[in-house]
Amino acid sequence: MSRATENGVGAASPATDARERLFAAAVEAFADKGFHGTTTRDIATRAGMSPAALYIHHKSKEDLLYLISRAGHHATLRLVKNALSASENPVDQLTAVISAFTEHHARNHTTARIVNYELAALSPEHLNEIAGIRREIERHVREIVSAGVTTGDFHTGDPRMTTLALLSLGLDVARWYRDEGQWSPQAIAGHYRDLALRMLGYRDQRNPADA
Amino acid sequence: MSRATENGVGAASPATDARERLFAAAVEAFADKGFHGTTTRDIATRAGMSPAALYIHHKSKEDLLYLISRAGHHATLRLVKNALSASENPVDQLTAVISAFTEHHARNHTTARIVNYELAALSPEHLNEIAGIRREIERHVREIVSAGVTTGDFHTGDPRMTTLALLSLGLDVARWYRDEGQWSPQAIAGHYRDLALRMLGYRDQRNPADA
Repeated sequence: MSRATENGVGAASPATDARERLFAAAVEAFADKGFHGTTTRDIATRAGMSPAALYIHHKSKEDLLYLISRAGHHATLRLVKNALSASENPVDQLTAVISAFTEHHARNHTTARIVNYELAALSPEHLNEIAGIRREIERHVREIVSAGVTTGDFHTGDPRMTTLALLSLGLDVARWYRDEGQWSPQAIAGHYRDLALRMLGYRDQRNPADA
Repeated sequence: MSRATENGVGAASPATDARERLFAAAVEAFADKGFHGTTTRDIATRAGMSPAALYIHHKSKEDLLYLISRAGHHATLRLVKNALSASENPVDQLTAVISAFTEHHARNHTTARIVNYELAALSPEHLNEIAGIRREIERHVREIVSAGVTTGDFHTGDPRMTTLALLSLGLDVARWYRDEGQWSPQAIAGHYRDLALRMLGYRDQRNPADA
């Protein structure tokens, strides 16, 4: 699954290895039982450790949720920034963002569910930090939408609500996506990119019938 | 909140009253702590009962999750059917469905989160029944989309994936909606109705510039 992608591969030391095993075990446990239904003992057992060994590396299971959440949000922020820097054109930026965002939520659906549906379990301090990353992600996408409105490519009466809807669409893929389903992450990403352009009232001048 | 809407008001008997209090208490507890993080004792305490009293009315907390899930899904199915029967025209049917579906997920966001994010906690038999209602909801919306393609009002290369995207959009409102937020359920429903028409490539012939 997505563990290698989000957690990095190639352990540098026994401590790093232990932390990575705990991270992966926490992802599995939270996905199975939810954050509140998971005990530190569950996580330690899945990682092949004692609960006492877990506490050497992490203060609490909330600490692990925070690390999972931070890694997931940083991965999303990174792909949004990559899409932004790949072009100066808002249409190209938007299609790149929506494709990458949608594909990410299909591929990493297990982590993405935890990241998006367990926010309320974070400590106020951690939630505050994560909310900051979420605002940054939203702001970048909103700026692409607004830039497209300025160039006359996009048409929307409410760039903020439309931005939220665009993000909702990709994010909800994590809820329903199944590895054994009929659509590949790329197929969903391609269809959603076209839907996003329609939501923004974009008309391809090269082929107006497509819009 | 939404409790009165989905749970009915005006208790007919002490047993009905107890069941309704347990239903409402389970909604609160699952919303706060997740299904797996909630004990039957939590639910009984919130309802002002002993755990033994809870078992008079419900076999398990899964039984309560099932009742919440069933009520939520039936409410959604009902609004989809109402929208269908209000018109013969797929454009009117679609705008009615999307408006009602979106507004429902904003208003009943607490229940809708449980209903949509705790499906994996249902017993196989209950999940099977709920999955049947979900397929029926999806089928009705897909039939509206397909009818609109037939009349030439809608244009989509993949009615199934577009239907899923339309439902995703409304459903995800339950995740981010806050009662204290700046947008009313009606305002979101109105904007999402317009987005849905765009996603289907609909052009208002009375005002082509809007599309």
